[in-house]
Amino acid sequence: MTRSFIAVHAGAGYHSKDREPEYKKACAEACSQAHRLLASGDSSLEAVCAAVISLENCTITNAGTGSSLNLDGEVECDASIMEGSSLVYGGVGCVTGVKNPVLVARSLLGVQQKGMFVSLGRIPLKFYFNSVLVGDGASKWAKDNGVEVVDRKLLKTDASLKTYDSHKRKLDQHEERMKRKRAKWQTGDSPKARGEQEGDTTHPCIIQGVQDTVGAIAMDTDGNISAAVSSGGISLKHSGRLGPAAMYGAGCWAHNWKSDKKTGVAITTSGSGEHLMRTLFAQKCAECVQTQESGSLGVSMAFRDHFLGNFYLAGIQQKLGGVLALRLDKDEESAMMLEVIWGHTTDSMCIGYWDGQRNKPKVLVSRLPENSEAGKSFKMEGKVFSVS
Amino acid sequence: MTRSFIAVHAGAGYHSKDREPEYKKACAEACSQAHRLLASGDSSLEAVCAAVISLENCTITNAGTGSSLNLDGEVECDASIMEGSSLVYGGVGCVTGVKNPVLVARSLLGVQQKGMFVSLGRIPLKFYFNSVLVGDGASKWAKDNGVEVVDRKLLKTDASLKTYDSHKRKLDQHEERMKRKRAKWQTGDSPKARGEQEGDTTHPCIIQGVQDTVGAIAMDTDGNISAAVSSGGISLKHSGRLGPAAMYGAGCWAHNWKSDKKTGVAITTSGSGEHLMRTLFAQKCAECVQTQESGSLGVSMAFRDHFLGNFYLAGIQQKLGGVLALRLDKDEESAMMLEVIWGHTTDSMCIGYWDGQRNKPKVLVSRLPENSEAGKSFKMEGKVFSVS
Repeated sequence: MTRSFIAVHAGAGYHSKDREPEYKKACAEACSQAHRLLASGDSSLEAVCAAVISLENCTITNAGTGSSLNLDGEVECDASIMEGSSLVYGGVGCVTGVKNPVLVARSLLGVQQKGMFVSLGRIPLKFYFNSVLVGDGASKWAKDNGVEVVDRKLLKTDASLKTYDSHKRKLDQHEERMKRKRAKWQTGDSPKARGEQEGDTTHPCIIQGVQDTVGAIAMDTDGNISAAVSSGGISLKHSGRLGPAAMYGAGCWAHNWKSDKKTGVAITTSGSGEHLMRTLFAQKCAECVQTQESGSLGVSMAFRDHFLGNFYLAGIQQKLGGVLALRLDKDEESAMMLEVIWGHTTDSMCIGYWDGQRNKPKVLVSRLPENSEAGKSFKMEGKVFSVS
Repeated sequence: MTRSFIAVHAGAGYHSKDREPEYKKACAEACSQAHRLLASGDSSLEAVCAAVISLENCTITNAGTGSSLNLDGEVECDASIMEGSSLVYGGVGCVTGVKNPVLVARSLLGVQQKGMFVSLGRIPLKFYFNSVLVGDGASKWAKDNGVEVVDRKLLKTDASLKTYDSHKRKLDQHEERMKRKRAKWQTGDSPKARGEQEGDTTHPCIIQGVQDTVGAIAMDTDGNISAAVSSGGISLKHSGRLGPAAMYGAGCWAHNWKSDKKTGVAITTSGSGEHLMRTLFAQKCAECVQTQESGSLGVSMAFRDHFLGNFYLAGIQQKLGGVLALRLDKDEESAMMLEVIWGHTTDSMCIGYWDGQRNKPKVLVSRLPENSEAGKSFKMEGKVFSVS
């Protein structure tokens, strides 16, 4: 029997065996932060926020401090949060100089819940929501609303600078090669004539597939559900590139169990940004988990019909995504049941969770079976708990 | 019989009878621009782009030049575009100093379709899409990719500056009143004690309900379908506020008729930004139009079940949205049928369309019946054409 629940992930992508202990430690720490709050009666919203803050502050994840650098060598972060009782969502995109991007999203969510804009009564709930802020406007909001703003240099780490240099060098070399190729093609030695495809040349950095968007889902002792997600986006991205962590329906979703017996659900996703966006994967997962007979049936349907088999991704060879989902419903005897499910088409996904009965979090790295190819099949696991 | 088709709108919101001729003229001109391209065999993508450019350049709409100013007195625009054959989407958010925001979205869409990033072969199609750019990064992209960048002052008009001054003055007065009220409450004369709700005080500018997001949908002579949307966002918005015109699933949608007999559909929406976002209204409309027996049944289902009756908007008194939709399918004799539908819960919506057989566009302002209350019921109309 559990009274509250937290689950986190440190990204669906590729996690080397060497670094597995570090990722697990990050997930364990995030679970602990959230569990402490839940155990003392705090809300699921505060719990997912604390978990994501912990993962943002951890320098090995691609969120907050230590995020991948964009093409200009800067950190630009996306984050969002959703609360299952009010169904309110707050998101922040391409924000710079904010230590914990999830706190900007949290702040926007809070203002909407309060139903008024800042202290001025400017935007009344019934008329207007302000859900997502991006760029400089988001930094300004942070400053004006008590969210910690730091020198943007402090978000870069030795490791992230080193990775940037290495990726940038590879990119420059790659571009140099492309330029030479193109010069050759222009002199008549065309790729078509040789049966080559110009656009098919793979980005040397992206192929590594490390996309450590982080996320958390939680249920508090009142049975309320929340979800949050945070990401530094892809290495060497164009400045201003909005990722799924800032997009409604793509990065996270939360919907309480309702008295009409509608199943409660919380979702947080990770993976290739545009694949998650084009499939509105968080929203679709939530829909599947809510309508199928179990969470695992819902998640497998989501992967099969709305991701790997989605015609909006037709033509894409490798469909890269991961999901961490929670389902809450009543069984026949009216006892509450909580199911946690994680699934991914990426090589690996690092997961942590803590139910109320354990004395420490459970952490693991889920890996595709050896004979499976990333982006073409998915692996899924889960667990069911009784809720007291 | 028609061979191609364009439909545009100049926003769902409130259009005074006095200014009706101006809005109609703007829609007629946008239809003409698009029709000219379609008649000479250009694609639906070029057609919706040309129509939206025309509406952006028209100073009376809230898009491009003449857009509503944000709280800092600046123009920040959102736009997006989707193409029904490739299902590719491009979006731009909070962009400043760009004359035609839809061209940035178009440029991002084009690069994805080409399957490579700029001229460097950096992002291969199979791995990665870059769909939405926001803020300064989007302006930079525009500059680097041949989209016209202008002094941001040129996007302001005498009228938009005058409206800003008037709204700002009202807002300042409103805030002053709120401050005084709050001071009174703090001395014990609380709003609760008097049965008042602090957050319920209505924004003096927003109540006017003018939200002239513009949009276009088209079918070309090859039967390809596209949709586009562009908006300056709401008057006095916080800088960096992302609107539905830049959000996947909220502002526009396009999906070609396929050989598997899946119905073709194009959608463009308008209305209260957060209502369109929280319902992912463009995507939901497209789903309904594709799965119901007719376009009008689809649109009415979308309004009933996924907008007015949507539990994600529960508690919101006035649900303000409008949609312009196109459905393309084959009837029993395998002749192509095109249906255009417009519907809105706002006071009014200004529409224009041009089928291949007419010698000029049809323009109209649709208005809720006199006894209907905006945000609580919807009005819908449509028309069916045979396609040669």
